[in-house]
Amino acid sequence: MALIVHKYGGTSMGSTDRIKNVAARVAKWHDAGHQIVVVPSAMSGETNRLIGMAREIMGDQPDPRELDMICSTGEQVSVGLLAMALLAIGKDAVSYAGWQVAIKTDSSFTKARIQSIDDAKVRADLDSGKIVIITGFQGVDDDGNISTLGRGGSDTSAVAIAAAMKADECLIYTDVDGVYTTDPRVVSEARRLKTVTFEEMLEMASLGSKVLQSRSVEFAGNYRVPTRVLSSLTDPLMPLEEEANSGTLISFEEDTNMEQAVISGIAFNRDEAKITILGVPDKPGVAYHILGPVSDANIEVDMIIQNQSVAGKTDFTFTVSRGEYTKAMGVLEGVKGEIGAASVLGDAKVSKVSVVGVGMRSHVGVASQMFRTLSEEGINILMISTSEIKISVLIDEKYMELAVRALHKAFDLEKA
Amino acid sequence: MALIVHKYGGTSMGSTDRIKNVAARVAKWHDAGHQIVVVPSAMSGETNRLIGMAREIMGDQPDPRELDMICSTGEQVSVGLLAMALLAIGKDAVSYAGWQVAIKTDSSFTKARIQSIDDAKVRADLDSGKIVIITGFQGVDDDGNISTLGRGGSDTSAVAIAAAMKADECLIYTDVDGVYTTDPRVVSEARRLKTVTFEEMLEMASLGSKVLQSRSVEFAGNYRVPTRVLSSLTDPLMPLEEEANSGTLISFEEDTNMEQAVISGIAFNRDEAKITILGVPDKPGVAYHILGPVSDANIEVDMIIQNQSVAGKTDFTFTVSRGEYTKAMGVLEGVKGEIGAASVLGDAKVSKVSVVGVGMRSHVGVASQMFRTLSEEGINILMISTSEIKISVLIDEKYMELAVRALHKAFDLEKA
Repeated sequence: MALIVHKYGGTSMGSTDRIKNVAARVAKWHDAGHQIVVVPSAMSGETNRLIGMAREIMGDQPDPRELDMICSTGEQVSVGLLAMALLAIGKDAVSYAGWQVAIKTDSSFTKARIQSIDDAKVRADLDSGKIVIITGFQGVDDDGNISTLGRGGSDTSAVAIAAAMKADECLIYTDVDGVYTTDPRVVSEARRLKTVTFEEMLEMASLGSKVLQSRSVEFAGNYRVPTRVLSSLTDPLMPLEEEANSGTLISFEEDTNMEQAVISGIAFNRDEAKITILGVPDKPGVAYHILGPVSDANIEVDMIIQNQSVAGKTDFTFTVSRGEYTKAMGVLEGVKGEIGAASVLGDAKVSKVSVVGVGMRSHVGVASQMFRTLSEEGINILMISTSEIKISVLIDEKYMELAVRALHKAFDLEKA
Repeated sequence: MALIVHKYGGTSMGSTDRIKNVAARVAKWHDAGHQIVVVPSAMSGETNRLIGMAREIMGDQPDPRELDMICSTGEQVSVGLLAMALLAIGKDAVSYAGWQVAIKTDSSFTKARIQSIDDAKVRADLDSGKIVIITGFQGVDDDGNISTLGRGGSDTSAVAIAAAMKADECLIYTDVDGVYTTDPRVVSEARRLKTVTFEEMLEMASLGSKVLQSRSVEFAGNYRVPTRVLSSLTDPLMPLEEEANSGTLISFEEDTNMEQAVISGIAFNRDEAKITILGVPDKPGVAYHILGPVSDANIEVDMIIQNQSVAGKTDFTFTVSRGEYTKAMGVLEGVKGEIGAASVLGDAKVSKVSVVGVGMRSHVGVASQMFRTLSEEGINILMISTSEIKISVLIDEKYMELAVRALHKAFDLEKA
């Protein structure tokens, strides 16, 4: 008997018929003798519908606390419906909202972080034979306010619950059948990976590969939660053994059985915006004085570059997600005078493309091959950022697909 | 400065534009120096949409706990959107779900009863100048499960909050402009009452006048909460003085200024189903043995009649709402043998019509005039039930409108 956490995305929960399919699949695992906790997302389209109403009332920046109050309802409906679908086929099941568990978070509404999970109630239910269904995406802060974890937060909820309960495996059921060398919608030759290391997955998730939210991968890595990404579109009654080995497993060891390509995939992110502060006096603390107010406004910064200074002045560039571009520009206009900058420039039409792979550690020449490939396609590089296992470039958004296809081919990723 | 509770129904909250109207109206009252608590219903259609999905999954009898989990989300969306609409026009506002207040109820899911309300958090917010918005229709039980109060429960929430906080007045904004002598859709000459006594209102609400849920009227009566039913379809910026005197006030004194008609209105309820248990041995405890199991199944019984026994056998008849007819029939088929009944008959196509009025106490002949009027229209009376201030008859549903029109005219209700 194992303790397994299942997570189902919005598409898998997209209609009452699909919810019945999810119930059939969950029941199959329970029938095999496992204890099952299920973390479903809101039905597809629901979160957007709720945000849409909030924007009709309050514009582009709805009050974060009230937005969480509204958006958290999507998952609450999902857990109740899934519990009903299980009860309807004779399974004992019970649903909980995040605050009922409780899943405690900080108070950063719309992007809260999980601080603790009390699993006592859930464990008692499991021990009495119940299937437990818990809302993804949300929690409750110390003052009893409902918080949400941000888009894709249900992945994080599932992995965090698996970690807190020391689950044997966390299965992320989604509308793709695993992790690919890149998005098959962009490169038709993209190939599914049977395993991917935690570090590669982290880079790919944070770089905009939409399979798993990056915070969920961090959790999986920090707590070494065996996590598998697999399809919810298969027959719910397919043999359990076969299902348990499908998809892509996120592994924690670079063992010899693993695929040994130099790089594992090409990740990309359309959702980037670039902000440059020109002519800042180059003295200690300049980065802090620029990024401090941005961070205080709870805006996440991605790439950061500071150029060599000329005549005591330097240019400072960073990227944020496009949804926070206007807010970030506002913050910087406010502090521009204080930091002595000449001007602030922005460009919200940029994309990031990255090559990722643990094999990069032991192979030179990945960077030069990447830059040569882009150069041959006539693509100008706006920014470069590197880590031990990835190289990212920022380019004009119109070249993104071209860059991804060219790099996928240049690194022979279509070959197993 | 007064403490006022506003309640808005689903139609008033039916779109983001209407929610902005509600915000404008609430802001007007706050601007006049009052402390305001708002209790909104779910957006119109939302609760039915949620119940519809539950039924698609679990049929006509969805699990009550999970149904409450799902249905409570409608009001949660409403409070968040209304808080945003107030914030958007510069008012400080905060929303709470029932469990956050907390509004404590028993565990009778889908028809829970409020047990206590902790107003500490709400009072602190009001004292700091905030407008507080609380979900109607719902609460939380001692085990932390979400409960709902049943259809129309937001009225009860509003009055209960007004009672707990000793509010100066509870204003129930709805899509009608007050309490009428009967439903104007059935009798075009129906007339709005400026005041109605608590007792009359209680009879009318429990008899199916849809203006206010009966439990809310009980609360208003028990705690003497001054409650006014008024229209939410007027200009939100109409003069406050005028608005404060519109609609129908539920009064607690039969003073001399009140309208002195013998009866105040004709109430009716289409939603009745009749169950007759034939040939029950007439011995002590028979009523208990029939209704005990019905009550244990949490089914509310309305009219009850036991006929004179003949040859040691009696017939026992009672009514339930149509939604519980099948369940009630099932319960009785189960206990039929045990109570020694010959058979159980049911009819789900009956309606109840009632004349209501405190004036009835001092006037004889109301019953005879009622029965004569129905007789002249050729309407057969199936059951009769009376109280101090009302007389109800059960009739075939096809005669309902005819009966209401005839009685409205017979008692001169079109005249002020």
